[in-house]
Amino acid sequence: MDHQAKGAFGSRTANFATSSPVKETEHIRQTLPAWPHHGYTEQEMLDVVPDHRPPQTTGEWVAWKFMRFCRWGMDFSTGMQKEQKVDKANPTTAVTALKPLTEAQWMIRFLFLESIAGVPGMVAGMLRHLHSIRRLKRDNGWIETLLEESYNERMHLLTFMKMCEPGWFMKSFIVVAQGVYFNSLFLSYLISPKITHRFVGYLEEEAVHTYTMCIKQMDEGQLPKWTDPNFKIPEIAVKYWQMPEGKRSMRDLIMYIRADEACHRGVNHTLSNLNQKDDPNPFVSEYKSGRAPPRPAIRPQGYERAEVM
Amino acid sequence: MDHQAKGAFGSRTANFATSSPVKETEHIRQTLPAWPHHGYTEQEMLDVVPDHRPPQTTGEWVAWKFMRFCRWGMDFSTGMQKEQKVDKANPTTAVTALKPLTEAQWMIRFLFLESIAGVPGMVAGMLRHLHSIRRLKRDNGWIETLLEESYNERMHLLTFMKMCEPGWFMKSFIVVAQGVYFNSLFLSYLISPKITHRFVGYLEEEAVHTYTMCIKQMDEGQLPKWTDPNFKIPEIAVKYWQMPEGKRSMRDLIMYIRADEACHRGVNHTLSNLNQKDDPNPFVSEYKSGRAPPRPAIRPQGYERAEVM
Ligand SMILES: [Fe+2]
Ligand SMILES: [Fe+2]
Ligand SMILES: [Fe+2]
Ligand SMILES: [Fe+2]
Repeated sequence: MDHQAKGAFGSRTANFATSSPVKETEHIRQTLPAWPHHGYTEQEMLDVVPDHRPPQTTGEWVAWKFMRFCRWGMDFSTGMQKEQKVDKANPTTAVTALKPLTEAQWMIRFLFLESIAGVPGMVAGMLRHLHSIRRLKRDNGWIETLLEESYNERMHLLTFMKMCEPGWFMKSFIVVAQGVYFNSLFLSYLISPKITHRFVGYLEEEAVHTYTMCIKQMDEGQLPKWTDPNFKIPEIAVKYWQMPEGKRSMRDLIMYIRADEACHRGVNHTLSNLNQKDDPNPFVSEYKSGRAPPRPAIRPQGYERAEVM
Repeated sequence: MDHQAKGAFGSRTANFATSSPVKETEHIRQTLPAWPHHGYTEQEMLDVVPDHRPPQTTGEWVAWKFMRFCRWGMDFSTGMQKEQKVDKANPTTAVTALKPLTEAQWMIRFLFLESIAGVPGMVAGMLRHLHSIRRLKRDNGWIETLLEESYNERMHLLTFMKMCEPGWFMKSFIVVAQGVYFNSLFLSYLISPKITHRFVGYLEEEAVHTYTMCIKQMDEGQLPKWTDPNFKIPEIAVKYWQMPEGKRSMRDLIMYIRADEACHRGVNHTLSNLNQKDDPNPFVSEYKSGRAPPRPAIRPQGYERAEVM
């Protein structure tokens, strides 16, 4: 069985494509990650569940509906058949479909999702930085988390890039999509950072859902190429997540990535609940009571403001 | 003697202005710095010297001349008198003037310089991030250094903010200047990152020059307010640079900041010498030969490409 993508984005999957090598020169060793990964316990990764925070205001409803539209576009572009889709009424929580996706279809989905996912954290971090130096005010720790998120997403993307080489059509599409997405987010964050963080929360709900579906289909034996014991994940992933020997399967990798997405989901839903101007970032805060810092990965709908302030 | 600014930017200087407090809530302690400062030895700080890398191409010449224009604008805006200026032929290395600036004049200069200085690292970091995820290519460690630079500059700004409260005119001017500066740098980095890094190198030459002049005038006893043993620097600075007890004077603070500027100067001149697309960032690289990493603070004109690649 040849896993060819059926959609608009022709894509050849291959282990260790050589098109974007880890940069090593004659004199220089590979550079280290900008933000070392903080790691997860086994249990934390197992505890991640797909979920959905229902919209509570008109703005949130618009963001949610817009995300539905984007999801429809992605389903369409990856050539998803009707039987491959989940229950429409629970798009981010239902995980049963009549027919699995192929590895190539998953890969296109991952690539597209990740190339988009690296934008909002950078836009938000940059705008908050500029705001801080323009208004001569402290930022209270948000920038760091936002930039780290965008770095983490870029590592997801680079990891998948090592496993496949997208065709020219998909490559061009990514370039155009970034242009549109960057400018929209830029404007949207200027108009309402609150709604924008909610929107990113919804985007991350999609990401957790996508990776959960993929894990499920691996467990059901429907993605044989990836569950093949000889399948090797890229070195860049092993290094970034510091994956222990013997725990370096494609499934292990997707479990790490899903946990990252669950973090982003909890973080963005929480940030959306806060006062954007004055509240410190609870995820880098030290609590006077000595309470443990909030754990976004296991709070799919985020923390309410009263819980963390 | 009342140190009133004579220029366009009326500014009241005061210790510990309360207009932008460190954020602490009822439950949350102050948040920690996003990038902990790497520190300097005493000797490293003493070794910093004002310097100038002469332009070698037409593009560099244009960048240098444009910087001359900006410097003229800043001198004019801070109401500098003819006797307060240094030798025009050596604007970034000559440090003798007939008459010192007042503390208020220095403060305006610092504020303006720092509110501008936080922009280029963020613009360059963001554009390289977007490029990486759009082109599906590794970045090779540049982004980290660029974002850290912009964070470091923001800490300079916030430190000075604690020491004074600019008037409405200066506040508005900073907002407008950021708009112009951000957009120009955005375009300029898209057109030629090489020239843009050179331009930032020139900007940092100005910064090192400014802080060196200020230290000199403190040592000559011409800034009595700042050399007063009772003058207290803001807590945010003590924490960020982890300044040891007994070494927390205004002079100590300016020595730290000047060393930071010398780093930026060496880094940006070096980055400008590299191949923008393929070369790894030497400042986060590990050398196979085991050689020590490059030290930008003591290389005012940056490293030539052959030295670090
Ligand atoms: Fe991701
Ligand atoms: Fe994500
Ligand atoms: Fe600075
Ligand atoms: Fe600087």
